[in-house]
Amino acid sequence: MAYEFKLTRTVEFSETDMAGIAHFSNFFRYMEAAEHAFFRSLGFSIHTTGFSYPIGWPRVHTDCDFRHPLRFEDTVEIHLLVREKRERSIGYTVIFRKLNGGSPREVARGTLTVACVTRDKPGGAMRSVPIPGEIADKIEVAPEELLA
Amino acid sequence: MAYEFKLTRTVEFSETDMAGIAHFSNFFRYMEAAEHAFFRSLGFSIHTTGFSYPIGWPRVHTDCDFRHPLRFEDTVEIHLLVREKRERSIGYTVIFRKLNGGSPREVARGTLTVACVTRDKPGGAMRSVPIPGEIADKIEVAPEELLA
Amino acid sequence: MAYEFKLTRTVEFSETDMAGIAHFSNFFRYMEAAEHAFFRSLGFSIHTTGFSYPIGWPRVHTDCDFRHPLRFEDTVEIHLLVREKRERSIGYTVIFRKLNGGSPREVARGTLTVACVTRDKPGGAMRSVPIPGEIADKIEVAPEELLA
Amino acid sequence: MAYEFKLTRTVEFSETDMAGIAHFSNFFRYMEAAEHAFFRSLGFSIHTTGFSYPIGWPRVHTDCDFRHPLRFEDTVEIHLLVREKRERSIGYTVIFRKLNGGSPREVARGTLTVACVTRDKPGGAMRSVPIPGEIADKIEVAPEELLA
Repeated sequence: MAYEFKLTRTVEFSETDMAGIAHFSNFFRYMEAAEHAFFRSLGFSIHTTGFSYPIGWPRVHTDCDFRHPLRFEDTVEIHLLVREKRERSIGYTVIFRKLNGGSPREVARGTLTVACVTRDKPGGAMRSVPIPGEIADKIEVAPEELLA
Repeated sequence: MAYEFKLTRTVEFSETDMAGIAHFSNFFRYMEAAEHAFFRSLGFSIHTTGFSYPIGWPRVHTDCDFRHPLRFEDTVEIHLLVREKRERSIGYTVIFRKLNGGSPREVARGTLTVACVTRDKPGGAMRSVPIPGEIADKIEVAPEELLA
Repeated sequence: MAYEFKLTRTVEFSETDMAGIAHFSNFFRYMEAAEHAFFRSLGFSIHTTGFSYPIGWPRVHTDCDFRHPLRFEDTVEIHLLVREKRERSIGYTVIFRKLNGGSPREVARGTLTVACVTRDKPGGAMRSVPIPGEIADKIEVAPEELLA
Repeated sequence: MAYEFKLTRTVEFSETDMAGIAHFSNFFRYMEAAEHAFFRSLGFSIHTTGFSYPIGWPRVHTDCDFRHPLRFEDTVEIHLLVREKRERSIGYTVIFRKLNGGSPREVARGTLTVACVTRDKPGGAMRSVPIPGEIADKIEVAPEELLA
């Protein structure tokens, strides 16, 4: 059972904007990269075909509070935590910490909620389904104190 | 006085992902594009130097709920509405509507809160400041019924 | 028969980098946006299923020379010209002109070569095929003097 | 003296497009990420202020040939090689190799040419300048056989 993953990245030049900081849309790309690395750490890919029905994970909600900027070549830890595990969805809390330039400092914090869906045919409408047992069995909610 | 702006875009190929839909990070780029077009509609640029002190508009919060996907070449209306006007920040509600394929349909809805800041020197720390009067005088909160 | 398309865009904040200019990777997104708008102007979508076999247009080559930067809110004309039309590929020349701030000025110029391919099954290997006649019949090479 | 750098990345979901492959514009972001990592490996940042004049490295040319697609979660080696070292510019060759799924396979190859410039004032016009000796002394052209 796992409830977290920490991904570390270096802010790239192409992720900065003319204000000299990482553009805010990148925090959502970072969240997702951590979610996918978390799945790989469990032995799955977010894009997978090995279950009894083909599943996907559309995003249903996300938010982020930005406290301090990230700049080019900053080292950022993206700390993904399972906040909520339901039959057909997972809710994550994501904490962004800048690791360089002194002691680690929280620069942003957000959430991401994803639904488990299937399609009856490729390109067809998505329909909510229970998370396959193989996946659900490996995921648990993080301890309260890590989410506070 | 203005309280809204509608920007219409076509979803581009480079904005789609392997799930065949517009990647969710693009909704935040769309929100910002509408905010900047709103400022231009008032006669300002979001990146401006004409006030008594140099100002910027860092994002302090954003969120989005995704209800239906957008696909390549869909026409999307990004409807930006002023939800809150404070001395040092503006809060927007943003409604995404798909215009093609039948009657307009809300596909996503989010918010964006931006703070008005200045810097004492280029690259220096940001400090919250009152929104310049020239701008504040042109912006008002949208009627309740448009935000519901 | 058509041999060109002009697409006009405003450089967005999210397309700039910390050097204060449009990041060079965006010129390739712009090229592709013009190519797709060109196809729409002919009555097709680049992503289409209406032909006797399903086709796609992978990029096989691209290049760009950058002469002058583009900045936030600059108006750029992306002028796509058919440089070469072969049985199984199309070669475009793309000229970027900044329209604001005086007389139009060429800021960059590149090329894009795309191959016409099909797949025997979804996700299968791509195989080069002749451009469907319905499309080929509508496209011609631009006059020499426009390409010089 | 150094003439190469190898950067390894995993293709991210947000880098794919509806064709199920890494969007071609990302190859240019990858090239640049390798260039910047090369500079860090020499003890410099591409964004630096420690020289006798402030310098920048605008891109003047780039190109890429695409042979095979990259897909989500593919491991790609970005092999940057110094092809040309001139007084005021550096030319790189960049070879993209897919490392997973059998023996390494070249999937794309391109070039990137960057000029060394300074500005007389922030936001001012760029002017070509000699590469500072501290940098030039650390860079050499790669052996012919690696570039073939």
